[in-house]
Amino acid sequence: MTKTNIASKNQIIGSETKHIILIGAGNVATHISRHLYAQGHKIECVWSRTPGPARALAGVVGAKATSTVSEVPQKADFYILAIPDGAVAGMATEFADCQGIWLHTSGALSMDVFKGLFPEYGVLYPLQTLSRAHPLPLGHIPFLVEGSSVEVSEKVHDLASSISERVEAADSPTRLIIHLAAVFANNFSNHMVHIAHQILKEQNLSVAMLDPLLEETFQKITRVGAREAQTGPAFRDDHETMKRHIELLKNHPEWEKLYTFISREIEKSREE
Amino acid sequence: MTKTNIASKNQIIGSETKHIILIGAGNVATHISRHLYAQGHKIECVWSRTPGPARALAGVVGAKATSTVSEVPQKADFYILAIPDGAVAGMATEFADCQGIWLHTSGALSMDVFKGLFPEYGVLYPLQTLSRAHPLPLGHIPFLVEGSSVEVSEKVHDLASSISERVEAADSPTRLIIHLAAVFANNFSNHMVHIAHQILKEQNLSVAMLDPLLEETFQKITRVGAREAQTGPAFRDDHETMKRHIELLKNHPEWEKLYTFISREIEKSREE
Repeated sequence: MTKTNIASKNQIIGSETKHIILIGAGNVATHISRHLYAQGHKIECVWSRTPGPARALAGVVGAKATSTVSEVPQKADFYILAIPDGAVAGMATEFADCQGIWLHTSGALSMDVFKGLFPEYGVLYPLQTLSRAHPLPLGHIPFLVEGSSVEVSEKVHDLASSISERVEAADSPTRLIIHLAAVFANNFSNHMVHIAHQILKEQNLSVAMLDPLLEETFQKITRVGAREAQTGPAFRDDHETMKRHIELLKNHPEWEKLYTFISREIEKSREE
Repeated sequence: MTKTNIASKNQIIGSETKHIILIGAGNVATHISRHLYAQGHKIECVWSRTPGPARALAGVVGAKATSTVSEVPQKADFYILAIPDGAVAGMATEFADCQGIWLHTSGALSMDVFKGLFPEYGVLYPLQTLSRAHPLPLGHIPFLVEGSSVEVSEKVHDLASSISERVEAADSPTRLIIHLAAVFANNFSNHMVHIAHQILKEQNLSVAMLDPLLEETFQKITRVGAREAQTGPAFRDDHETMKRHIELLKNHPEWEKLYTFISREIEKSREE
């Protein structure tokens, strides 16, 4: 399929066809490149240290796959680095000869990781939990963007707008705060449910029993807010029930500590 | 409207019209009695210590409202006590002359709280977070039931089946374990989101930004399980990001402790 064919088949919202290189072939690289491709952008090349994931993703987005740095085209509109935070700085130096706007996709990493390496750079951070195996519509996902200059910021904004209708500018310190909030909202709440599931599994009870409760838990948060949605023994000062629960946790001192600590925080939150 | 009219207008699934007294007019009483009424059962009377809530609920379910114990009919099929756990035992003694099957709706309270007070008793526990102001379909909600004899168990099962298709027998110790799991799944995960919202509000950032993340968080749990859904810096051993997050929490020592503790637990959970 030629570039023209793709562009005529798809809609480019607010931007023309861009030539894009993906560095990385994991969860974020997969989601972002699939959507950019679907919007008619040209994914030229997917680079990954291991050939398998690069080939798998490249096949889906009509790109060349490579594990060799020197085979990556040295000119493109955007180089999108979607690899673990700790690897971004080191990896970027390997591609120092490549010309284009360099973006990373991290919530926690400063834009300045690219400073001095490339003349134009920025950030394209999707505020969502992404797994390669589960394709997800990204059209309503907030994308937080940043650029090394006003011009670059506009270009990154345009690129993100071709994926999502919710693009917002956020500098690196603001993005880190939002990322921290996302860790509580997703990673930590998920872990609370993990513990709930473990408690049931230990007694051979069905974890699916909690599904209607989970569904309502999160619908209620978006409906009335987490503060208003709070219920439970800690919130109503039911110390008898809390004592009985803690007794059940005696074989799990870590969960007992968590139970006691979070309950105390919930008690305090009533007074806020 | 006469009883016959109600019964002919509605469907009674698996049971005939029952005469029911509600003791309490809060969240659980409101939800349960609305659904029992809609299924054609006869709510004879709603008792509540304060007249306002009793009158409000009684008006909705075609019942008499009272705050006077002696005005509560002394004979009915079911007396449903939906009041705070700590008040159940004391309240039950005030109604010692009433004949019928006595049920409480608590997840954490043993059925034996009624022992010696009434000849027939049991438990009707809806596994859901309920707020009076938000009517909720209960047809798919697990109801955990228990009875003081085989006959009573069957009658409670029948009553619950007229509200929900998911009725399960659970003895008091099992119900307490499930209630504990529900506290982690709902109360504690909700508190994690509350903290996330506070972090954003302190910086005048929009909490609605997290809505797509929250929606996916809980859809993902039911799709792949909490263990498989876990992502984030702790899960991928990203200590650099965790250090930056902890630095941001220095004005909230409690949240910092929670962050550190839960992150360590998430790290350990990878090895399970």
